[in-house]
Amino acid sequence: MPPIRRAEPQIPVELALYQPEIAPNAGAMLRLGACLGVPVHIIHPTGFAFSRRALRRGGLDYVEHADIIEHDSYAHFADWLRAGSRRLVLLSTKAGTSAYVCRYAPGDVLLVGRESAGVPAAIAAAADLAVRIPMRQDRRSLNVATAASLVLGEALRQTGGFLTLK
Amino acid sequence: MPPIRRAEPQIPVELALYQPEIAPNAGAMLRLGACLGVPVHIIHPTGFAFSRRALRRGGLDYVEHADIIEHDSYAHFADWLRAGSRRLVLLSTKAGTSAYVCRYAPGDVLLVGRESAGVPAAIAAAADLAVRIPMRQDRRSLNVATAASLVLGEALRQTGGFLTLK
Repeated sequence: MPPIRRAEPQIPVELALYQPEIAPNAGAMLRLGACLGVPVHIIHPTGFAFSRRALRRGGLDYVEHADIIEHDSYAHFADWLRAGSRRLVLLSTKAGTSAYVCRYAPGDVLLVGRESAGVPAAIAAAADLAVRIPMRQDRRSLNVATAASLVLGEALRQTGGFLTLK
Repeated sequence: MPPIRRAEPQIPVELALYQPEIAPNAGAMLRLGACLGVPVHIIHPTGFAFSRRALRRGGLDYVEHADIIEHDSYAHFADWLRAGSRRLVLLSTKAGTSAYVCRYAPGDVLLVGRESAGVPAAIAAAADLAVRIPMRQDRRSLNVATAASLVLGEALRQTGGFLTLK
């Protein structure tokens, strides 16, 4: 008799924002997460008053649907990663690997840094993988929310994380 | 003797904005295009004063690098499409095809509609293909620039339109 095949519960790819500084960028990524069903981690401190109430007051009604996980500090976020054996994939303009060559896996957590300065060197060094979006060399970089959209889209595509259409 | 293989010049995927209404959204898509080397078409009239000078005044210095093609009207844009035998791929929340199932081809032009009302029914009907991003059913839709980033990323991936890293 063939073995019974059991569907493993799929661990989703998630998105994490390291000390976000600009509220509209964080809002854009929360909206992205809410629409695609992707949890979004906020690693404090933030550069603006971050609360569901403040977001709602700013007209961001989709926060009702967002799966937001707040971490008091990077250390707490790192504890959470370790506890779940999660792989940390850093988006960085300094990375040597293309985000379109990288192989993503269910449970990967995509980390974006601060708008001004990315993440500290120690965090970059501790990431399991760092990826960047191939861009024209003479250009300013992409907006962080745009970069997150591109990489999250590719990670969801690879891991079967997109919903199917009805 | 085997035939000499000649590399065909690749026609890039391009992005087109139908009568954009909100300057920061158009700005985000121009920045996306500038960073990825994708030409961006602006189909007039726009809902805000559109000019390179106005964009530059708004601090959007990357417009210097953007490949912007302006069309006075949709009719002129349609003439341009026809002259180049370009395929028009509409992004629409009403489309039945997933943007991640669709097969893109070099030269495809991805069209996004107005923030308030998309594109008129006649234009939607004339598109060669319409795609949408699979989303949670109870959610508000994605911001237009985010949606454009996701679909453009997938189209570039499929058509080999991303630059390779050095």
